[in-house]
Amino acid sequence: MTDSASDRRILVINPNSNDAVTRGLEGALAPLARPGFAIDCRTLAEGPFGIQLQADVEQVALPLRDLVRREAADAYVIACYSDPGLHVCREATDRPVLGIAECGILTALARADRFGVIAVASRSIPRHLRALRQMGVSDRLAGERALEMTVAETASGTDTLARMIAVGRDLRDRDGAGVIVMGCAGMAVHRRGLERELGIPVIDPVQAAVAMAIGIVAVA
Amino acid sequence: MTDSASDRRILVINPNSNDAVTRGLEGALAPLARPGFAIDCRTLAEGPFGIQLQADVEQVALPLRDLVRREAADAYVIACYSDPGLHVCREATDRPVLGIAECGILTALARADRFGVIAVASRSIPRHLRALRQMGVSDRLAGERALEMTVAETASGTDTLARMIAVGRDLRDRDGAGVIVMGCAGMAVHRRGLERELGIPVIDPVQAAVAMAIGIVAVA
Amino acid sequence: MTDSASDRRILVINPNSNDAVTRGLEGALAPLARPGFAIDCRTLAEGPFGIQLQADVEQVALPLRDLVRREAADAYVIACYSDPGLHVCREATDRPVLGIAECGILTALARADRFGVIAVASRSIPRHLRALRQMGVSDRLAGERALEMTVAETASGTDTLARMIAVGRDLRDRDGAGVIVMGCAGMAVHRRGLERELGIPVIDPVQAAVAMAIGIVAVA
Amino acid sequence: MTDSASDRRILVINPNSNDAVTRGLEGALAPLARPGFAIDCRTLAEGPFGIQLQADVEQVALPLRDLVRREAADAYVIACYSDPGLHVCREATDRPVLGIAECGILTALARADRFGVIAVASRSIPRHLRALRQMGVSDRLAGERALEMTVAETASGTDTLARMIAVGRDLRDRDGAGVIVMGCAGMAVHRRGLERELGIPVIDPVQAAVAMAIGIVAVA
Amino acid sequence: MTDSASDRRILVINPNSNDAVTRGLEGALAPLARPGFAIDCRTLAEGPFGIQLQADVEQVALPLRDLVRREAADAYVIACYSDPGLHVCREATDRPVLGIAECGILTALARADRFGVIAVASRSIPRHLRALRQMGVSDRLAGERALEMTVAETASGTDTLARMIAVGRDLRDRDGAGVIVMGCAGMAVHRRGLERELGIPVIDPVQAAVAMAIGIVAVA
Amino acid sequence: MTDSASDRRILVINPNSNDAVTRGLEGALAPLARPGFAIDCRTLAEGPFGIQLQADVEQVALPLRDLVRREAADAYVIACYSDPGLHVCREATDRPVLGIAECGILTALARADRFGVIAVASRSIPRHLRALRQMGVSDRLAGERALEMTVAETASGTDTLARMIAVGRDLRDRDGAGVIVMGCAGMAVHRRGLERELGIPVIDPVQAAVAMAIGIVAVA
Repeated sequence: MTDSASDRRILVINPNSNDAVTRGLEGALAPLARPGFAIDCRTLAEGPFGIQLQADVEQVALPLRDLVRREAADAYVIACYSDPGLHVCREATDRPVLGIAECGILTALARADRFGVIAVASRSIPRHLRALRQMGVSDRLAGERALEMTVAETASGTDTLARMIAVGRDLRDRDGAGVIVMGCAGMAVHRRGLERELGIPVIDPVQAAVAMAIGIVAVA
Repeated sequence: MTDSASDRRILVINPNSNDAVTRGLEGALAPLARPGFAIDCRTLAEGPFGIQLQADVEQVALPLRDLVRREAADAYVIACYSDPGLHVCREATDRPVLGIAECGILTALARADRFGVIAVASRSIPRHLRALRQMGVSDRLAGERALEMTVAETASGTDTLARMIAVGRDLRDRDGAGVIVMGCAGMAVHRRGLERELGIPVIDPVQAAVAMAIGIVAVA
Repeated sequence: MTDSASDRRILVINPNSNDAVTRGLEGALAPLARPGFAIDCRTLAEGPFGIQLQADVEQVALPLRDLVRREAADAYVIACYSDPGLHVCREATDRPVLGIAECGILTALARADRFGVIAVASRSIPRHLRALRQMGVSDRLAGERALEMTVAETASGTDTLARMIAVGRDLRDRDGAGVIVMGCAGMAVHRRGLERELGIPVIDPVQAAVAMAIGIVAVA
Repeated sequence: MTDSASDRRILVINPNSNDAVTRGLEGALAPLARPGFAIDCRTLAEGPFGIQLQADVEQVALPLRDLVRREAADAYVIACYSDPGLHVCREATDRPVLGIAECGILTALARADRFGVIAVASRSIPRHLRALRQMGVSDRLAGERALEMTVAETASGTDTLARMIAVGRDLRDRDGAGVIVMGCAGMAVHRRGLERELGIPVIDPVQAAVAMAIGIVAVA
Repeated sequence: MTDSASDRRILVINPNSNDAVTRGLEGALAPLARPGFAIDCRTLAEGPFGIQLQADVEQVALPLRDLVRREAADAYVIACYSDPGLHVCREATDRPVLGIAECGILTALARADRFGVIAVASRSIPRHLRALRQMGVSDRLAGERALEMTVAETASGTDTLARMIAVGRDLRDRDGAGVIVMGCAGMAVHRRGLERELGIPVIDPVQAAVAMAIGIVAVA
Repeated sequence: MTDSASDRRILVINPNSNDAVTRGLEGALAPLARPGFAIDCRTLAEGPFGIQLQADVEQVALPLRDLVRREAADAYVIACYSDPGLHVCREATDRPVLGIAECGILTALARADRFGVIAVASRSIPRHLRALRQMGVSDRLAGERALEMTVAETASGTDTLARMIAVGRDLRDRDGAGVIVMGCAGMAVHRRGLERELGIPVIDPVQAAVAMAIGIVAVA
């Protein structure tokens, strides 16, 4: 995206070092482009190739903070569903810092009574439940179910969408979800296909966070 | 705002019949304008002059639903902090329908740990607390305090901002709020002044809802 | 029921226009009759034939309020499991106004640790869960399951009881319910049969609400 | 109250051995009398003179259970705000057993958004809060405040009503209570005076429980 | 265990009169022995042979209190998963009184995100859920499942461990428990075998409570 | 403490680099010493001099994880009230890893109905409230109040105890706390003085965590 000197800038940081994911974010965010705003997607060079373990989460917290300090922006979005470094980045700047898990879930709460989450792998579920309790919104969770794939498979695998549809149906029909949150930044490309198939809203948390960021910055 | 045939349209409905409030919404939303989107602010002709009682809330529910049915739009925003008719409007359309109380609070949850609400009058507080429990987010409420003014006074009164600052300080210092939600569509003009004075984010719920609506529509 | 001038009066309003339902209420409430009290069951003429959609709920709110204003009574009971117009009616009178969903659930809480709800159709379940969160009693819910019938079928269908028993068993055995709330005013005729079969208390919410109303009025 | 052989019987047990309290219960319950029902108020001979300590609560549990076993009734009401022996009595009979704290609070929940409780002494408050959490209704509590009197003083003291009014005003004005629950069976005589003074509903939990008991038995 | 005059003393009371259970406690607690501390396991002579009903719970409350009063100790542990008499014992002494259900669950909360409970029989589950709500920790419960055995069978039955493993697997795999609490003092002998088989921590609540008691006393 | 080859070892890590704090931990833990166990208190060389900001918390997470990996132990205790690195350390070892905030609060829950927390400075309170929601135990919090001192002042200042007593009285008398948790590892030396003055239990979270660790290891 072109970027003029007077533009207000949303810095979207992909905390993993996989540029393909960053380019995927750019694609997912293209529809949110508007004049006067630069939505810059940036790969965190110091990040691991994927963020799956708690150690990956911890490892990127201070590099994210450093990037936030180093790069001027009107708002920052941390584009990983574990919201790594969210609180330390907030401490480092007066500008808004948004996490995609928080914003994806909050946006889902505006669309239906209870939400379901599609996780990449079940080992992340306790971490996500902990985050939901921390947010104070667990009462709205219909359920969380995992694809049981790796992040890499999720992004590239040809049958990822088929798995997402199967899991989404369980969330909708067994758990009573009225809206689905995709629990990984790398699932963005499947949003429309999944939504069309399920017939209920499907939230890409990166899009949700950037839309909130634009709204906050625009009125500041 | 001009409105071309191919624009996607966000219909923002002021459920009261006070055109001055509607024009105030237009002013508050101007910074959110972007090409390809029409943000239409509309006064509900059938609405009462102000919405203060539960009867006012009930009275506008079906007229709002009728307007939603009659007017094609890509998303609808109900611009009254009581979120009147929210669920019946959702039933009447497949398009997103957002309430400003919900969106204002959800946006606040992305900015700080606990939020405070400035109400116009204390008689609305039980209704607001009921809505917070319904949303399942009460654990994040720091407190709600009232200006003890009428809606009319809030919009016009010269010392409204002074009252809002006093109440906002109590929410911040006594109750521990890290972000403030303005509990009335008519307070929009005071957002910046209040934020500057308090030094913590202040959310105009109409702006918050329209930003979420644009984000949802843009990626649809 | 005969009604002498000095009687205290409980006005039970069936918000739908189906007189057969109103007569069913009279039957269900007959055992609660006592001297000095008139329990008047009234059909809301303006109501739809059944209340299934949110639009039906909204449509009757102000007519209920008007009826409450027009008809003097010592207490009012709104006899529909969606508790339509409850808050606006309370605003219109100093007398107690009780909703059957609230009273049915509250009475269940006095009988066993966790309650189950039999809904007519699953599309009402999100609305009911929303109401439970609003009441602040969700932690006591064992589960809610639907008959997947229309309201009309529920009242007339010969195999309604069989369906209720099957659903009630699931609530008791799979979900751990120790008491059942019948989630529709039209299920009253099946209360005893269901209770006998399940061996746990079954609450008719209309009876529960009128009993509470009598208690409140008697001591006023 | 006279008691014919065919009457259905509500046995109201005062767990303390103070007959004056039992006679007070009879007075408070007189307005609930109806043909075909006997409301029998009984003093638990084995009870202590007042129930203030946890030891008093424990001491009466099994004597209450024994009385429930020994005395046939259609429903039982345990008339002490600590609900002593509630669960063990339920285990001993298939008939409904109601506790006045539970029923008083549940009835309050049908009257206003948040309730306040007047305790006799502050040392009971942790016990009451524990019970509220157990009931799962803490989110509706506005506050609990104590008279700081003994049970004996509460019943006899000439200025008890004045204390209750002062405490009730704090619950209403500082804590936001829309309804008051009197947290002791011995406060019954002050209900009307307190309600008149405060202008919001005041619940006598004994009356609330007996009204619910009559409702349950009448339809059984 | 030998017991010198200057030792600090933890009195562990088995509220049932089954000495075999008491000897089992001694075995389970042997690894916690340390110089300067006497861990005395005592059978409550007045107790029933097993505690399964609410009546059993009530029956031992005051005898436990009397024992606490009679026997000097630096801390008391009530070794029954229903925590009988916990609050009345606390009222009778200034020394710490710990219940094993509370301590077992609290210790589990330090080991994993959500815990599962193995109950002896499903009829205890409502009582346990009530206690969890009272503790305010229900949000961390993954699930509770029953062996459907008697307490006697649990202790002696040769296939108890096999049943526990089957139930533990369901708690881990279906309910998402990351730690298991054994819901009966008599299951202690199976802790290691169960933990080895499940691969997640298994908490013996008696050991948990005595460890906490030693910690409290040691620093007093 | 001497440390024989066969001892089981509890490694207590002070995440800040202030050796005086580490020596303070050793003093506080001396009463928990027992034969066969080595309680090793270790300063994290890479830590900041004090942990007050979120950045301090993040900075020590991976160094703590590395230390856990490098140093064999039977259990690990992270001795900072922000529980830094807790989840990543758990991921790195099969041995128990305990955080002092979690264990201090859990131990408090076994002592009284509601707990109060003494924080060093009010800026930590939102972080602590977030952690309480994550733990799922917020309903037991009476209140948290700050000394408004630096960590350094807390440890050294001669009037720290006086401040703690004043704050503790507010927690006890205004907020209703029945037990106090000291919200900083450096407050340990004041535990007895504070407890004597307040007359309710005061928990040093380091002692609480080590006692739980010993209990877990002893029975492993």
